[in-house]
Amino acid sequence: MNDDAIVLPHRHKNPNRLSLDLIEAQYALKNSWGKKNAKSVLVLVSGIELAGKGEAVKQLREWVDPRYLRVKADPPHVLNVNQPFWQPYASFIPGEGQIVVMFGNWYSDLLSTAMHVSKPLDDTLFDAYVKNMQAFEQDLKNNQVDVVKVWFDLSWKSLQKRLDDIDVSERRWHKLHGLDWRNKKQYDNIQKLRKRFSDDWIVIDGEDKTKRDQLFAESILHAMQDLPEHPDQGTINWTQALVPDLLLHPESDALEHDQYKKKLKKLTRRVAEALRYDERHVMVVFEGMDAAGKGGAIKRIVKRLDPREYDIFTISAPEKYELRHPYLWRFWTKLENCSDIRIFDRSWYGRVLVERVENFANEREWQRAYDEINRFEKDLIDSQTVIIKIWLSISKDEQEQRFHAREKTPHKRFKITEDDWRNREKWNEYLNAAADMFERTSTDAAPWTIIATDDKYSARIKVLKTILKCLKTT
Amino acid sequence: MNDDAIVLPHRHKNPNRLSLDLIEAQYALKNSWGKKNAKSVLVLVSGIELAGKGEAVKQLREWVDPRYLRVKADPPHVLNVNQPFWQPYASFIPGEGQIVVMFGNWYSDLLSTAMHVSKPLDDTLFDAYVKNMQAFEQDLKNNQVDVVKVWFDLSWKSLQKRLDDIDVSERRWHKLHGLDWRNKKQYDNIQKLRKRFSDDWIVIDGEDKTKRDQLFAESILHAMQDLPEHPDQGTINWTQALVPDLLLHPESDALEHDQYKKKLKKLTRRVAEALRYDERHVMVVFEGMDAAGKGGAIKRIVKRLDPREYDIFTISAPEKYELRHPYLWRFWTKLENCSDIRIFDRSWYGRVLVERVENFANEREWQRAYDEINRFEKDLIDSQTVIIKIWLSISKDEQEQRFHAREKTPHKRFKITEDDWRNREKWNEYLNAAADMFERTSTDAAPWTIIATDDKYSARIKVLKTILKCLKTT
Repeated sequence: MNDDAIVLPHRHKNPNRLSLDLIEAQYALKNSWGKKNAKSVLVLVSGIELAGKGEAVKQLREWVDPRYLRVKADPPHVLNVNQPFWQPYASFIPGEGQIVVMFGNWYSDLLSTAMHVSKPLDDTLFDAYVKNMQAFEQDLKNNQVDVVKVWFDLSWKSLQKRLDDIDVSERRWHKLHGLDWRNKKQYDNIQKLRKRFSDDWIVIDGEDKTKRDQLFAESILHAMQDLPEHPDQGTINWTQALVPDLLLHPESDALEHDQYKKKLKKLTRRVAEALRYDERHVMVVFEGMDAAGKGGAIKRIVKRLDPREYDIFTISAPEKYELRHPYLWRFWTKLENCSDIRIFDRSWYGRVLVERVENFANEREWQRAYDEINRFEKDLIDSQTVIIKIWLSISKDEQEQRFHAREKTPHKRFKITEDDWRNREKWNEYLNAAADMFERTSTDAAPWTIIATDDKYSARIKVLKTILKCLKTT
Repeated sequence: MNDDAIVLPHRHKNPNRLSLDLIEAQYALKNSWGKKNAKSVLVLVSGIELAGKGEAVKQLREWVDPRYLRVKADPPHVLNVNQPFWQPYASFIPGEGQIVVMFGNWYSDLLSTAMHVSKPLDDTLFDAYVKNMQAFEQDLKNNQVDVVKVWFDLSWKSLQKRLDDIDVSERRWHKLHGLDWRNKKQYDNIQKLRKRFSDDWIVIDGEDKTKRDQLFAESILHAMQDLPEHPDQGTINWTQALVPDLLLHPESDALEHDQYKKKLKKLTRRVAEALRYDERHVMVVFEGMDAAGKGGAIKRIVKRLDPREYDIFTISAPEKYELRHPYLWRFWTKLENCSDIRIFDRSWYGRVLVERVENFANEREWQRAYDEINRFEKDLIDSQTVIIKIWLSISKDEQEQRFHAREKTPHKRFKITEDDWRNREKWNEYLNAAADMFERTSTDAAPWTIIATDDKYSARIKVLKTILKCLKTT
């Protein structure tokens, strides 16, 4: 970023007027929740120590209604290969109508990591991180989370003067991020690095405290006031992918029960071993029509695992509070605090399947989702995760038979609802949605595997073999 | 607990029958959500190493639909003075319709802590913990979370034999909790300690693996099948407390603006210092009628604080997913991951105020809530927390004037809704509810302070003084 990256029109309102405008904008933002122009505001603040980011937020919080301005301050997390940069912050991303200021954020983590003397980041890696962060923020913006990034700057001379004057009792609020701010070389290095940030930062000079606070508040006001209607329609030039033959004709040779039992015994053991042996996180994702055998396949995967080794996520319609966030948010937050082996019975692909077919997402939203999903998966793959995506393909006739069988079996009767019958009517639309999904999200790093399931036994064996193939084995 | 604490009728069903029954019960539980007989099941498992708790849960998960049986395994947390024993587990307590098995739980933490050689717990403290845990579980049960506690036992001789035979490759699943299971003295000590647990544990002998798994599954089946209707009515012999005079006549001497400004300047500084200096967590809880000045008071408390030092929680109606849990659950989970200074603009007292007056809670529920709240606060106070509870008392006339003023002021207009006017109609019911609240929840450790607010200036000064009085100062 350049120092004059974003120039705000600042008329320097009188503080009372500014405070009134801020409160009006804050409540308008708050009340936008659930409406056509709803959005949220995420403010990332970073900067030179003692440039006054704390004071500026404090002043802002005095001008607004402090109850509706959440502040999140985290000590820096060193970026590591085991989790995406957004993971520690995901659950604090504001929902519609909310505004959150993050002192600790992915950029402060990046700077901390880059400055970490024992193993500094090189420029190429630094730039790659910045690019990824920007892409993530663009996804947030597309999903009505406005991201405002503010750098509080301070000259070397002023910083030294402020360090001389610092009040001892307040020192706990200037933890100095483990850096030596008396060291000119470190200061220069930080300045050099932050200039590699993107151009959409607002740079505020911390020299003049009044101007600083005012400029910061005006930037936030500006973001809160900007509540555009979200367009419903996107690009209409949509080329429908061809439905793969395996979806139209999911036949396969039947496997004898004896054969199946023998293979199953061997494979469940080998899969358990491979899942344990592979040091990466493993995500197995199942999609497919109802009754295609997702539950049965999952049962066989975990057969030889200890229940403490894995988590199964069964995905259904989002909760109301989840709808307040970007679609993928509920998956970001699920990945905190879970086992290394994660099995998804349906997944984020709901966005381009059921949400597309049932019009829960508009065209613009589901058409954008393929890229969002690919980026999400790439972030995970870059963080030591293997993603195994399996489509279980059943024929319409076989599904009907299984539905009838379920209705007759006491312990399966719960598994069938009117929705299931209703979904059958949109069979071809689901096939089309699946076809587009394969075409656009079957990446080199996370390809789809389609498995025919009209014969249950051979399908289960194929699922286990697919998983084995994707894992490192002893 | 005695070894035969709970004797289950076990006919030893055949495994297929048992599996069918389990699945039926599991779906019935799942589908109970939102209905009259809704509940959830929390299974706490502990026991002697290698007695087979992992295997028993694994077998259970094979018999049921594994997608709807969540398993949570945590390494033990040493119990410490800084957080209640339930804190690390609060967010994993199952909601209505759900079932969760916790391997790590407050009892395994208690045993770990007690066995911790450098600073062992004495029996009195151990027993006090057990008693607290039981009280917490009773609150869970009263709120439709069934708690099933299972101890997997194993004789010393069998344990030694199993340690001889243990498969090296599976050792990672027998972390042995940092204990030396070859040490007879330690084994005896664990046995001695767990016998101090309450009598409602199910003890399962791990000797015979088939019996063990079956008995465990039957215990869970038993819990899942038991879906009683929740009674709406409780004790009716309710003695209404007298409404304190300060609620009926919240007059006070008016404070001049100059005086106010002078006092405010001094007090905001002293409050900030005291909040920082006090090493305990601080919770300031505001309740009171609309427009009583909660927002204004909060603004003055945080005036001299850095925005990173505190969190403000503004409590309104629970979200749908929160209603799936015990009423206090959303407060339990809020206390994870927040600052040491926590300010509540309305709070858990909503249960005995708005929920009582508006019939969102039935009599049984709100009448029980006083004890639940007192226990909740005691757990916090025992964990180094000071709770400052302030009722801002406004007169009906003054409220009306403030409502009108709000409607006329652009930046306050958002603060007033039709609900606010409607609530005025129930003025006396709210006063009665407040009176009962004071009488039943003004404890020695966390008393209520009532502050008259018809004069805003003097009210704010009193709020600051009240906080100062409750804190340790330099």
